[in-house]
Parts: sequence; structure tokens; C-alpha cells
Amino acid sequence: MFSERVDRLTSSLIRELLALTQKPDIISFAGGLPAREAMPPLDLSDPPPDLSQYGTTDGEPELRAAIAGQLADLGLRCRPEQILITTGSQQGIDLVSKLYIDPGTSVAVEAPSYLAALQSFRLFGARFEELALTASGIDPEQLRQAIQRQRPAFVYLIPTFQNPAGVCYDEATRAAVAAVLRETGTPLLEDEPYRELVYEPVDRGPLCARLDEGNTWMYMGTFSKTGIPGLRVGYLAASVDVHPYLVRLKQSTDLHTNRIGQWWCARFLNSRDYPAHLERLRTFYRERRDAMQTALTRHLGDLAEWTTPNGGLFFWVRLKAGGDTRALLVRALERKVAFMPGEAFFTSPSAAHGAFMRLNFSHATPEQLERGLAVLAEVIREQRGMTKTEATAGVVEI
Amino acid sequence: MFSERVDRLTSSLIRELLALTQKPDIISFAGGLPAREAMPPLDLSDPPPDLSQYGTTDGEPELRAAIAGQLADLGLRCRPEQILITTGSQQGIDLVSKLYIDPGTSVAVEAPSYLAALQSFRLFGARFEELALTASGIDPEQLRQAIQRQRPAFVYLIPTFQNPAGVCYDEATRAAVAAVLRETGTPLLEDEPYRELVYEPVDRGPLCARLDEGNTWMYMGTFSKTGIPGLRVGYLAASVDVHPYLVRLKQSTDLHTNRIGQWWCARFLNSRDYPAHLERLRTFYRERRDAMQTALTRHLGDLAEWTTPNGGLFFWVRLKAGGDTRALLVRALERKVAFMPGEAFFTSPSAAHGAFMRLNFSHATPEQLERGLAVLAEVIREQRGMTKTEATAGVVEI
Repeated sequence: MFSERVDRLTSSLIRELLALTQKPDIISFAGGLPAREAMPPLDLSDPPPDLSQYGTTDGEPELRAAIAGQLADLGLRCRPEQILITTGSQQGIDLVSKLYIDPGTSVAVEAPSYLAALQSFRLFGARFEELALTASGIDPEQLRQAIQRQRPAFVYLIPTFQNPAGVCYDEATRAAVAAVLRETGTPLLEDEPYRELVYEPVDRGPLCARLDEGNTWMYMGTFSKTGIPGLRVGYLAASVDVHPYLVRLKQSTDLHTNRIGQWWCARFLNSRDYPAHLERLRTFYRERRDAMQTALTRHLGDLAEWTTPNGGLFFWVRLKAGGDTRALLVRALERKVAFMPGEAFFTSPSAAHGAFMRLNFSHATPEQLERGLAVLAEVIREQRGMTKTEATAGVVEI
Repeated sequence: MFSERVDRLTSSLIRELLALTQKPDIISFAGGLPAREAMPPLDLSDPPPDLSQYGTTDGEPELRAAIAGQLADLGLRCRPEQILITTGSQQGIDLVSKLYIDPGTSVAVEAPSYLAALQSFRLFGARFEELALTASGIDPEQLRQAIQRQRPAFVYLIPTFQNPAGVCYDEATRAAVAAVLRETGTPLLEDEPYRELVYEPVDRGPLCARLDEGNTWMYMGTFSKTGIPGLRVGYLAASVDVHPYLVRLKQSTDLHTNRIGQWWCARFLNSRDYPAHLERLRTFYRERRDAMQTALTRHLGDLAEWTTPNGGLFFWVRLKAGGDTRALLVRALERKVAFMPGEAFFTSPSAAHGAFMRLNFSHATPEQLERGLAVLAEVIREQRGMTKTEATAGVVEI
């Protein structure tokens, strides 16, 4: 009696784990929760009384203007009228799914990719074309072939500090990917939640800024990583050919985004302290990243491999000897440690994907991080049928 | 290149008019905007710092408990765990559409019905079965036949101060409609935004409270009519067989509703002043309703007919001589007066529907109301090819 799409409704392992990670005695590397102590203060006193009334679907003019100004600084020229304020950037994914996806519609995605985006595309019936990620991004030639073969309705990319893989596309890859999109006229959905969480200088000019006038582009951002996630404010900037449809789809989805959150975000973006807040945030997370790098090397150095991310919130770790990180999670949870098994981030999981796990470094304190990774190393050794002593003994024998 | 559903995307006349009605010189009877001056104060100082973090999809426990308590007082027994906090009650409509509607799915609706619900159902591909409204509600026998003939996935009803018709189902109709739903096992979506805006004692026990244990039911409420619409907080209570699906659909739609709005709503519901606030609100709107009743009788008494609503925000007015209220709107807007043509509220409009218009009485001041209806009467007379002088002259001749 339900719709067909309900058969495609998969539950989010992330959300189910969130319930567990909220228990105070769990050390969680699972979610993507920003650190509470790094968030800006939430001053909501004396909101303008007009904000109590219903608002417009597009969003508050002051916030849209501030965002357009930021995007212009990144080289993405668009008018405030092209910006739709969304109820978190997750809503942007829902709206784009509604705009493009019928059962069987092809969508090209990175492998691995953001779990909740894959779930939304799948809910609407998408057929996936996977684009393998390397340390420098996707392969432009593979993208071209995928487009020629499958004619995807759009390509979904997270080029900057990708979730889950942490990859930041390099300049040559950005240029080549944009060239393929221009030449084939393929719509792009670029998702950039982590843009401002940068710890070393890297190439990160938006792909959307490199497209032509006639290209269809959609660019998503959020205030949940730099500001206050509980306010649920994000945005979806888009080329003029699709923006009006997205507005009408949002209208039928929730009329408009809460105005108090929009008011707070506009003041936040326009505040004199905003650049300094970003710097403090980067310093804070850089230290956490470095702490995880150190602890990973100490505890998992002989068990796993990874690349240190230059931004974002995650390490993407592969067990050298392979294995099944889903089964590992069950054991780790018994020991009060949580992480995300990698398999969930692939649209067509294979045995090889079972060796990956995503470790968040923003939420746990350095002490929890040290302790949690020590436990994780023990559990990995146990799964491999070795105790730590045996492993160490092995090393001594050489 | 877009999805099929985009072909079914209709723009909301209400939202397009909202842009016009925001001009200060327009007298608007068009929207359903609550009066700014009747809203409670929006005190958001000192929010609990924990609310800055991401929250759970279901919603804040304190708010869910308060709502469950309220529903119990109405005879609708449900646990807090069955309540999903939504981003306005419009989101409830989107989630139920996602849960039930594939292209061609039958949905039974009142005729007329809430425009934005019809638009959402249509977007997902619903086929409509119309249930004619009378002054006492829908005809239970027509409902039974529609169910037997079309097997609708669910029935969508607004039994209390219906939008747009203002009808409140009487006790006998409520009992008979619930009996048909029980006997046929048909899921019910009951939408009650106006429940608390009651101006005279009337029957208004929820239909959902009269269903059996095994019946599927969904009950929507909102804080936008009694509280602060700009916060975008509503809820969707549901039977245990559907609640978990609705939660997972919300998760993929916007993760969760903004927590500041939920915090404010919980304090609002639990405040000692809440019952007194409702009484003040009812007095305020009762006076506005009475002012419109008086002005309607004075200016449109010979031109139109209507029933005085016992609650809600609208008069549903029929031009006695018929006519086309869409064309009338164009002329009225030239004279700076806005209203909603009735045709848009029907899924299969006929010429007879063109004679209806919906007039909101909550937003305009009594002075604007008097002036606006005088203009509307003039425009109606002009459309009929008569000046007011001619019409008056006609009366004198008798």
C-alpha cells in the first residue's frame, strides 16, 4: 500500500549510530558532528519582530546577498536572486532529487560518496554510475566515458575535503573535470560543506566557477560546519535555468526555512569576527587532526594505511590485511568505540570495500581519541586472530 | 532532462500573491497569514547551549511529550515516540506524499481542499477522488463508494474549520466518517492547523481518535497559527505501523527540524500563560471575523452568499450570479485588493467553481477590511457590467 520508493528506503547507519554515540560513555568516530566547544556563541536576543511572520520561499534577502558576496570572492559569480536558502544542505539534495530523478534515472557519483546523498538519490530511484576517487580526485576520462555511455541527469561531486575520503581535487583535475562538463553540457551538483575547514593551503576553486554561461550548475553550502548545525540553514545556488524550479519544489516541501536561523546566519557572515572565527576553528580542528594522525600512527601504523587530509573532518582508513569493518564495528561497540564502516559509502559494495572505515576527528577529545584508537587497534588484532602481544612478538622476531 | 514530476509542478498562486501582498499599499484577503499583533512575544534569550549541535530526526523529547499530552486531552492516545516534529506542517504533507504516492496512486480529498496539499500530492503523481463538502462535512456514503471504487492509498481531510471552505464537520458526520474508515481499513491523514482558532463552541473531536487499534492514521498540527510561523515547527503524529517510515523519510529530507524553534514551542506549550494566550487569540480573531461578517453583509449582501465560520481564518464566498473570480482578481489587484479565486482549490475545476473566492480575515485591519470589501463590491459590479449607481438605481425602481 506504500509507494514503490519505500522499498528503496534504506535507514542511515549514521543516524542509528548517532543514538549510540549520544551515550556519554561511547567514544565516537562515527558521525560528522562538529565540536560543540568550537561553535560560535548563539546569541538570539532581540530578533526583529517581523521575523515571526511567514517568510518567502527563496529566503531572507540579507542572507542571500551575503552568500552571493562570498561566492563572488570564490570566483562563482551569481546574483542573490539565484540563491535559495535551504533547511540544511540535506534539503538541497532532496530538492535536486525531486528535480531530476525518476526511477531509472542515471546519476554519476564519486566512489565512495556521501551516504545521505546516495540514500536520497536511491529513494527517488536513481541508477548509479560510479567514478573512482584517487588522491587527486576523479579521473576526467572516466567521467567523459560515463557521460557518453549513461547520459547521467547530473554529476554529484564533493571536490573539496570529500566525505568520506578526505580527498581534495587538485588544480589539474578541477580544470579537466570542468572541461568535460562544459564539453558535454552535463549538469553539476557540487556539494561543499567542508570548504572553510582547511588546514593547509590547497587548490579549492569551485568547479561551478569554471563552467560556461550555458552550463547548468548547482552549488550547495551550509552553516552547519562553521556555524550552528542545530539551526538547520544551508543554501543551494544555481544557474538561472534551474533556480525557479528548485524554489517551487521547496515551496511544496516546507514553504520556507526558519527565519531566526537565517537572521543569525546573516549576522554571523557579516560580523567583523567572522574571519577570525574561521581561523580559530581551523586551528582547533587542525590540532584534532594532528592528534588523530599521531594516535593513528602509534596504534594502527602497522595495521592500516591512510592519507592525511588537508581539511574536512575525516580520515579514510584502509586495513592493510583487508577484513570486514562491519563485523569490526560490532566488536568495537562492545568496547564502547564507534566508527563508520566504509562499505556504506559505495553504491555497489564489493568485498574490497569492506576494508575501509571512516574516522571522524572533530567530535572526540584528544584523550578520547588516544584511548579510542588504542581500543580499535586491539579489536582489529582480535579480529585477525592475533593478540597485541603476538603481533609485537612477530615484530621482535624479524 | 528533468524528472517527470516537474511536468506536474504547479506554482502556488498563494505564494505568487504573497509577493504582491507584501507591498504596503495592498489590502490582502489572499494569504492565510496570522496577524502579527496577535502573535506571542518571541523570547529566544539564553537558549541551552546543547541546542547548537545536530539533533535527532524525531525531534526534541520535551516538545514531543508536550504534544502527546495535548493529543491525549483531545482523546487521541499516542505515546511521545509516535510524534515526529516537522519543518512546518507542510513538511508532513511532503513526507506522506513520499510514503504513499506513486504516479497514478489514488488519493481521496475534499472538494474544495487545501491548495498546497493538492499541489504536493499532484507533484508525486496522485490521481484524485473528490469528496464534495457540505455545511456539515463530507457525505459518508460518498466516501464509502469512493473507497470501494478507487481504493485510495489514504484519505486527506481537514475536518475542523476547513481551508478554504471554513466547514467544521458536525458530530454525526465525524462518527459516520470514522465508521467508514474503520470498516474499510483506509488510512487517514487528518490536517488540523486551525483547531485552536475556535470562536463558538462546536464539535471538533479528532477523527483519528475514533479509529481502531489496527487503523493507520496520521494527524498533523502546527505552531504557525497559534505561535510563530517564522520558526517553521509542526508535527505529524502517526500510528506505529507508519511512524518509523515517516522518520526515515524525514531523515533523508532535512535531517531534523531546527532546535531553537522546537525549544521555543515546548516552552510555549508548557507555559502557564498558554491557555490565556489562546483565549486572547480567539477574542482577537473573533472580532476580525465579526468585522468581516458585518462588512460582507454591507457590501456584498446582494452579490454573494456565505456561511459564517465558527473558527479558522477564512470566509468562503460564492457570487450569486456566478462569474469568474480569476478575472475578478486581475481587476481587484489594479485597485490594490487581493483575494484567492476559488477554482484553485478544486482538483477538477468546473465553470461553477469559478464563482467562489476565499477571503482571509486575520491579516487585514478592520479599517482595511471595510475599505477592501467596498472596492471588491465595486469590482464585482463592474465585472457584471453595472456601476454601483446603476445597481442602486435598479433597487430604487422596484
